[in-house]
Amino acid sequence: MTTSFGPSYVRAIAPYVAGKPISEVAREFGLDETRIVKLASNENPLGMPDSAKTAMAQAASELGRYPDANAFELKAALSAHYDVPADWITLGNGSNDILELAAHAFVEKDQSVVYSQYSFAVYALATQGLGARAIVVPAVKYGHDLDAMLAAIADDTRLVFVANPNNPTGTFIDGPTIEAFLSKVPRHVAVVLDEAYTEYLSADKRYDSIAWVRRYPNLLVSRTFSKAFGLAGLRVGFAIAQPELTDLMNRLRQPFNVNTLAQAAAIAALNDKPFLQKSAELNVQGYRRLTEAFDKLGLEYVPSDGNFVLVRVGDDDSAGNRVNLELLKQGVIVRPVGSYGLPQWLRVTIGLPEENEAFIAALEKTLATA
Amino acid sequence: MTTSFGPSYVRAIAPYVAGKPISEVAREFGLDETRIVKLASNENPLGMPDSAKTAMAQAASELGRYPDANAFELKAALSAHYDVPADWITLGNGSNDILELAAHAFVEKDQSVVYSQYSFAVYALATQGLGARAIVVPAVKYGHDLDAMLAAIADDTRLVFVANPNNPTGTFIDGPTIEAFLSKVPRHVAVVLDEAYTEYLSADKRYDSIAWVRRYPNLLVSRTFSKAFGLAGLRVGFAIAQPELTDLMNRLRQPFNVNTLAQAAAIAALNDKPFLQKSAELNVQGYRRLTEAFDKLGLEYVPSDGNFVLVRVGDDDSAGNRVNLELLKQGVIVRPVGSYGLPQWLRVTIGLPEENEAFIAALEKTLATA
Repeated sequence: MTTSFGPSYVRAIAPYVAGKPISEVAREFGLDETRIVKLASNENPLGMPDSAKTAMAQAASELGRYPDANAFELKAALSAHYDVPADWITLGNGSNDILELAAHAFVEKDQSVVYSQYSFAVYALATQGLGARAIVVPAVKYGHDLDAMLAAIADDTRLVFVANPNNPTGTFIDGPTIEAFLSKVPRHVAVVLDEAYTEYLSADKRYDSIAWVRRYPNLLVSRTFSKAFGLAGLRVGFAIAQPELTDLMNRLRQPFNVNTLAQAAAIAALNDKPFLQKSAELNVQGYRRLTEAFDKLGLEYVPSDGNFVLVRVGDDDSAGNRVNLELLKQGVIVRPVGSYGLPQWLRVTIGLPEENEAFIAALEKTLATA
Repeated sequence: MTTSFGPSYVRAIAPYVAGKPISEVAREFGLDETRIVKLASNENPLGMPDSAKTAMAQAASELGRYPDANAFELKAALSAHYDVPADWITLGNGSNDILELAAHAFVEKDQSVVYSQYSFAVYALATQGLGARAIVVPAVKYGHDLDAMLAAIADDTRLVFVANPNNPTGTFIDGPTIEAFLSKVPRHVAVVLDEAYTEYLSADKRYDSIAWVRRYPNLLVSRTFSKAFGLAGLRVGFAIAQPELTDLMNRLRQPFNVNTLAQAAAIAALNDKPFLQKSAELNVQGYRRLTEAFDKLGLEYVPSDGNFVLVRVGDDDSAGNRVNLELLKQGVIVRPVGSYGLPQWLRVTIGLPEENEAFIAALEKTLATA
């Protein structure tokens, strides 16, 4: 459509394609909604923790009122949990909001943003939405090449996005490597370390990014309650950074960006260690099962530290979409990643044991008849 | 704080000051939370409708999943209710999100935006956040001067905000006057008609803005579920415009900007006519009571078509803050509007009868001892 409205860089954006909701797949393929398996959006297959449900129910009496714009209680909980002052915290409508706010707060038109090939789609969208220039650094083994990203920082670069683990590939960068990178990034360039999947890391891979925030005034760590914490439907994420970056983010933040129920549920989920532990254990088991099946089928996959696996389902560039369609017909929703430049691959969320089995069975059937 | 980060226009923004939540006032003034009366944020004093509570409860089972990014059901309900195609609808995290999206989608840095003096604070914030130029047109009788706004449109103007009724003043522009304005605005300039309070209009003042959307490809009508519909805590608003503007908005919209519960509750609230009617009737009665009390106290007020009244509580520029503080000490929260350039005034939301009485009693006491 030709239009006379809007900046050219907005008109050039290709809208984000979200995973198909279950109801839409049911409608489209004439399937029974209750039998559909959705492994498309990296949600926690356990759903929302009971602790959060209880907290939400208690908060439901005042929904005619605006949310607390300052989120006093949630910030206090995060402050205690991560041992940072409340004015180091920015809340977002999911971490998507945090990523958009960071781009908007730190970058202007015609400046540049550095991020990796095959990293989260929102980095590109946020950059394009500002009319800023994207410097996309080629990936190595489907993951970030931090040395190359450092070298790619230009005079006009104001922001670098680093995802760890990375979505949609699941790749991981160890702590010392990230810290070495941070120590070399020019101080006027903000670094957003997107740790949406950090709660899934095994103990031996964990690192203390909050300690880096204390050391680097240009670092912002982004987290979400949509993955391991199980609150994707409520929308809440947060950033931790020193006051200079946090203050800029909050000047642009919509005051009521996090709804009342999300604030209450997040406090409960944050402190629900048993739920997080159960989620992580389920993920380890599921990862083992899925990758065993891929090995058996002779399918290449990228070793993942997230709650999903990127698997190569064919050699031609229509393989991802073709296999995806066959899976959909069998009521299994996964994520094709052609828009990421990975048309031979599918991203599969690790589900409940029975969901993983349903996916594997459907995949085996699809590949056997291909 | 001096900073090396971020565009100068972001650093120049004064963050939005939200109304104080009840819990914060209780903490600050050592008051009993249950006895505090909040008439500060133009919420529906009836709270959330029961129909929406029921719908919300039914939708609560799937909160581990992301919301439907396309909001199929809610768009279908809005489409039927307002008789427009689904692709004429943009959903927002409250209408705040719609207003921000519109500015971002239609305007770039160094272009200009026209809005009225004493109109909603978000117009200024959204303009500043883009590094765009604000053309603020002097108000007439605290309301929009559409002729002057038309004349103020510059070569680089890409957006005009019109609020009707206007917040924080409550002023109203009749339908024929708006339509005459729309017919004269250049076709490449988008007009956002912000109708957050439209459900409170009396029958004789109503006009069909959706019919104008059909006629004017540059018109976007913004609505919210936070006021008469009683869903402020859940965050949902929407815009209706032809596909050209709607498509641009949706390129920038965060895909999961409206949470699952908000989508479900909004469908129920939209069709809950008895609740809307009861809300409007309560508002008429409360308006009568408040304005009678202002008359009796000899206080000037701006005739309002919203669910709030702007009242002048003194002659000096500290009057608003001074009276506000005395009201807070008595457990009554209203909105000082010094940041709007109205330091002698307070904005009072029309509450339940007992809330209105509590406010009037506290105001009488304050003014008697002043």
